[in-house]
Amino acid sequence: MQNAKVGIIGAGRIGQLHANNILRSSQIELKGICDINVTHLKGTNLEKYVPVITEDVSVLLNNAEIDAIFICSSTDTHCHYISQCAEAGKHIFCEKPISFSLEETEQALSKVKEAGVKLQIGFNRRFDTHFSKIHQLINDGKIGNTHMIKITSRDPEPPNEAYIKSSGGMFFDMTIHDFDMVRYLSNSEVKSVSVVASNLVDPVFEKYNDVDTAIITLTFEDGTLATIDNSRKAVYGYDQRIEVFGEDGVMLAENERKSNVKIATNEAVTIDHPKYFFLDRYKIAFEKEIEEFAQSILDNTSLSCTGEDGLQAQKLAIAAKKAWVEKRTVEMHEI
Amino acid sequence: MQNAKVGIIGAGRIGQLHANNILRSSQIELKGICDINVTHLKGTNLEKYVPVITEDVSVLLNNAEIDAIFICSSTDTHCHYISQCAEAGKHIFCEKPISFSLEETEQALSKVKEAGVKLQIGFNRRFDTHFSKIHQLINDGKIGNTHMIKITSRDPEPPNEAYIKSSGGMFFDMTIHDFDMVRYLSNSEVKSVSVVASNLVDPVFEKYNDVDTAIITLTFEDGTLATIDNSRKAVYGYDQRIEVFGEDGVMLAENERKSNVKIATNEAVTIDHPKYFFLDRYKIAFEKEIEEFAQSILDNTSLSCTGEDGLQAQKLAIAAKKAWVEKRTVEMHEI
Amino acid sequence: MQNAKVGIIGAGRIGQLHANNILRSSQIELKGICDINVTHLKGTNLEKYVPVITEDVSVLLNNAEIDAIFICSSTDTHCHYISQCAEAGKHIFCEKPISFSLEETEQALSKVKEAGVKLQIGFNRRFDTHFSKIHQLINDGKIGNTHMIKITSRDPEPPNEAYIKSSGGMFFDMTIHDFDMVRYLSNSEVKSVSVVASNLVDPVFEKYNDVDTAIITLTFEDGTLATIDNSRKAVYGYDQRIEVFGEDGVMLAENERKSNVKIATNEAVTIDHPKYFFLDRYKIAFEKEIEEFAQSILDNTSLSCTGEDGLQAQKLAIAAKKAWVEKRTVEMHEI
Amino acid sequence: MQNAKVGIIGAGRIGQLHANNILRSSQIELKGICDINVTHLKGTNLEKYVPVITEDVSVLLNNAEIDAIFICSSTDTHCHYISQCAEAGKHIFCEKPISFSLEETEQALSKVKEAGVKLQIGFNRRFDTHFSKIHQLINDGKIGNTHMIKITSRDPEPPNEAYIKSSGGMFFDMTIHDFDMVRYLSNSEVKSVSVVASNLVDPVFEKYNDVDTAIITLTFEDGTLATIDNSRKAVYGYDQRIEVFGEDGVMLAENERKSNVKIATNEAVTIDHPKYFFLDRYKIAFEKEIEEFAQSILDNTSLSCTGEDGLQAQKLAIAAKKAWVEKRTVEMHEI
Repeated sequence: MQNAKVGIIGAGRIGQLHANNILRSSQIELKGICDINVTHLKGTNLEKYVPVITEDVSVLLNNAEIDAIFICSSTDTHCHYISQCAEAGKHIFCEKPISFSLEETEQALSKVKEAGVKLQIGFNRRFDTHFSKIHQLINDGKIGNTHMIKITSRDPEPPNEAYIKSSGGMFFDMTIHDFDMVRYLSNSEVKSVSVVASNLVDPVFEKYNDVDTAIITLTFEDGTLATIDNSRKAVYGYDQRIEVFGEDGVMLAENERKSNVKIATNEAVTIDHPKYFFLDRYKIAFEKEIEEFAQSILDNTSLSCTGEDGLQAQKLAIAAKKAWVEKRTVEMHEI
Repeated sequence: MQNAKVGIIGAGRIGQLHANNILRSSQIELKGICDINVTHLKGTNLEKYVPVITEDVSVLLNNAEIDAIFICSSTDTHCHYISQCAEAGKHIFCEKPISFSLEETEQALSKVKEAGVKLQIGFNRRFDTHFSKIHQLINDGKIGNTHMIKITSRDPEPPNEAYIKSSGGMFFDMTIHDFDMVRYLSNSEVKSVSVVASNLVDPVFEKYNDVDTAIITLTFEDGTLATIDNSRKAVYGYDQRIEVFGEDGVMLAENERKSNVKIATNEAVTIDHPKYFFLDRYKIAFEKEIEEFAQSILDNTSLSCTGEDGLQAQKLAIAAKKAWVEKRTVEMHEI
Repeated sequence: MQNAKVGIIGAGRIGQLHANNILRSSQIELKGICDINVTHLKGTNLEKYVPVITEDVSVLLNNAEIDAIFICSSTDTHCHYISQCAEAGKHIFCEKPISFSLEETEQALSKVKEAGVKLQIGFNRRFDTHFSKIHQLINDGKIGNTHMIKITSRDPEPPNEAYIKSSGGMFFDMTIHDFDMVRYLSNSEVKSVSVVASNLVDPVFEKYNDVDTAIITLTFEDGTLATIDNSRKAVYGYDQRIEVFGEDGVMLAENERKSNVKIATNEAVTIDHPKYFFLDRYKIAFEKEIEEFAQSILDNTSLSCTGEDGLQAQKLAIAAKKAWVEKRTVEMHEI
Repeated sequence: MQNAKVGIIGAGRIGQLHANNILRSSQIELKGICDINVTHLKGTNLEKYVPVITEDVSVLLNNAEIDAIFICSSTDTHCHYISQCAEAGKHIFCEKPISFSLEETEQALSKVKEAGVKLQIGFNRRFDTHFSKIHQLINDGKIGNTHMIKITSRDPEPPNEAYIKSSGGMFFDMTIHDFDMVRYLSNSEVKSVSVVASNLVDPVFEKYNDVDTAIITLTFEDGTLATIDNSRKAVYGYDQRIEVFGEDGVMLAENERKSNVKIATNEAVTIDHPKYFFLDRYKIAFEKEIEEFAQSILDNTSLSCTGEDGLQAQKLAIAAKKAWVEKRTVEMHEI
């Protein structure tokens, strides 16, 4: 059995997550990790099992054995590395969002196209058991034409201030996943975007011209309507639900719970909380997305989540930001 | 035990429903029914048990024994009858919506105020077991300050064309209940209204400049956000759910099902359908609303669903229509 | 529309329940109530609406207008009244259990047969929405041949000591409903009965040679197996669930809850409690059983819950008692 | 980080399952596999990654590097290998049941005791997320004293005839897990065992004096009652549920489903099937049990599922068989 050989740029939280998943996979082999500073990897599993740990990106790019690079560095460096990887003829797995600038993203994508390498964007939720089942059932025609898509996406707790400052705002950092999901589930492109939003969770968001609670409303070319509701703080756990309503029925994906135990006492009947956050909820999805990426390289098949998908989600985030700032419905052709 | 004595104007579907509920109640006694044509009541229970069946409203208005009148006639006659009842010193239970015209409604309400009679509007959903529990839990502070209210309200099948023609449109006929519900659950008034809507169920709606699928987005004075999603056709049954998200948690009221039976076979695991339509789902609520009305008359206490509530819901319907026609967010102070 | 005219013997809790349901029914008319002492009815609805309130049974029995009698007196008087009613040519609705003595019951049933009157036993759970749906689905062949029936039946709190003393024991007073249910759901008769039981809830049960916690295991002629598990105290509410497992699947009837509201907070995710006790849970079933009884009289059709059903349930209670006392499996042919 | 070094005897389905889990674990290292015939391992992952593949047990037993042996061979060889491993000073993980003979088991356990090695039995369900949560909540006193334990344990489909012939019968092969579970959840030992059983699924079971449908009833020293209901065929999937009822409430562990997606159409409202069989349902539990075993070796701590637990479960299986054959309640002191 052949393996896909890969390197990772960026060994922060998400980079380490992918690295450890790769170590457990039989389809994919981790040849090297690069970070601007690698001292935090001392004494970890990664140091023991990964042949190359480096602070020099060219060591990975010039390694002929390496088929593909995972870009897990900060968002503002993504496009730079995408271009470099493409030039080096490496396939690319890039974390979301691609960038904050449409120009940068478009340039990077054109480099990818020229080089003829594969580019997958890290929209891991497409690989969630429940959401991918919804996707499949829609395409199987189970509920006929889609009339309405409703996504509930609430984080258990707000990020810290440093993160808020550099995240690009809620629409870029958090809603971007939901923008991709709504596209993944619909068979039409978004026509217009409206937003109502508030600052209800913590004043720190207002400080950075950000919001913490929002309802984004979308209309699609084919008449489908959609809402995404977001909050930076859901005290009961990570709230990730989807409902799709169509001419022949409705489908819902409920939260995953920590356990299926129900307790009834005199005081209350309780069921367990939703899984706490994305590391628990999307554990399997993170594993599946890299398996598909590896498989696609080994079999030279097309990807189900491409740079184009990353670009479209980025455009929706830009439209939402604009709709919020200008307090009006933004048509997608404006972006 | 004393009874409240009442008459009914309008013996269509909803009038007969109230009449039969009154017959089963020990707190309220039905003294007369008036309709423009009463031939359809021949041979019914109502003919047997109701002392007066008449085509002349004044027979009820002049009956000194009658404490209150239920106005169940067509919407365009409501204000006229409200005024007449108020002048006759009768308490009033009026079906929703009060009228299609704000001027008419305001005049009628001022007549009610002058006369010092009670006026309850038929927003029966306030008396639903599940929704009134949500209301109570919000007021008990169970989830702290409210951040978001989401109402799903979908009819199992569209009304017939004659009804569509005269209903005043989806916002007046169907969403009006949801407008009242969102006010019932919030502790703040609506500040602005936005609408996205489509004609996806049946072209007949477009013929009458109506829509059949809509998402109404509301912002409140206190920053609370809300959505109402409506469809004229949910093939799986009457879909009536509410979710309220707050700083300390979330509450959901699920649909009532025809039974609690679950069946698992090789083919599928199935649970029962939601109750078919409002007569099943809101059966108890229809009974409770007239009990509260009667109790309020007997004890001379204030009502929980007044003419003012009817007026506000009507304003929201007008705003939604305007938002839809003008394709913009409408501020409530414009109405 | 014709009504069935009835009288009631015994105006305790269950007699008054039926009386009030009859008052609300359009198919059945309450002509008289008899109790050994009627002073507790002074000032009630019943006094106002029921023409005859008497302490003399013959007043009801000799009233030619009366079609049927509801026997709601204490269990030890049932057979006496059944015989008297049968002799007077009255149809009979008798509360469960018919009696504590097989001989008495058999004599009473033979009187009923001779007189050609109808006899319905008050096994109200056959009329429960969920359980009757299970019954229907079994008969529709939804899960093929039945392999196993499991009934959970737990009261929210124990009865008072006076009741315990005269109830005939848990098997006669409480499990009798479950014995009827298991027969209602199976298409075969019970072959043998085993019991394990404990005194875990309150020592008062041991004082009267009774148990408060039990598992009754049944085998049927066709190989079907069944368990009934009972407790006199379920602090979380009335626990009434049924599961039927067959060659092609499984069916479950879940508890009815006070509401469908779910609340998720930091502390817990809670759903509502089961309805508190039989007056709430079986409200509709109590209404339906008298409607069917009345309908059967008016249309002269056969009943779905007869004296024979009462006799068989009684035999099962006797077998269970015997199995418990003699600590062995009891074959039904022994009874 | 230190690893526990292990070998595996028996490379059938369960042996290969453990082998692959060990390969993915960072705490445990697979040094060798022994089977009576190893040709079926050619070309597998195991051949590639495991240093020693042998048909000679002594190769593993004499390997000084190996800390522990997994015994995954056929049941009739377990005790022989337990003794050999103990003599060789190896810790032991042995699949269930230990043996079909009490004498053999007791001799083997005494060898283990003499040698002072650790012995864990493969009751993987103790490591299930939901069941271990139930266990913990009981011990936390959430529902007070236990009154009743109900285990539903139904396989999706019967094993093949060869397996049936050598399995030792349903009580030894299938119920043994439930016997262990009921002991794991109770805080008291079983006092007596009763059984009702039928042959309803397939006549092949009767051919080998086996049953395919059974209800086992247990009484405990402290008065707790329990039932286990088993079927060899549940067409809707692997049915693994537990309910524990106590003085202060009830707890239920529901099945895990393939997904949390619900679909409502005109025809039906469906949720997903339970996971298909033990490889899906207990995937995580199989991983956790070997992690605990390794941890216990590395830290020299005591195990939560020991040889004594295996012995007690075996005694319960013997008692159940006896109760079934002799058609009577068997007291545990008889075994």
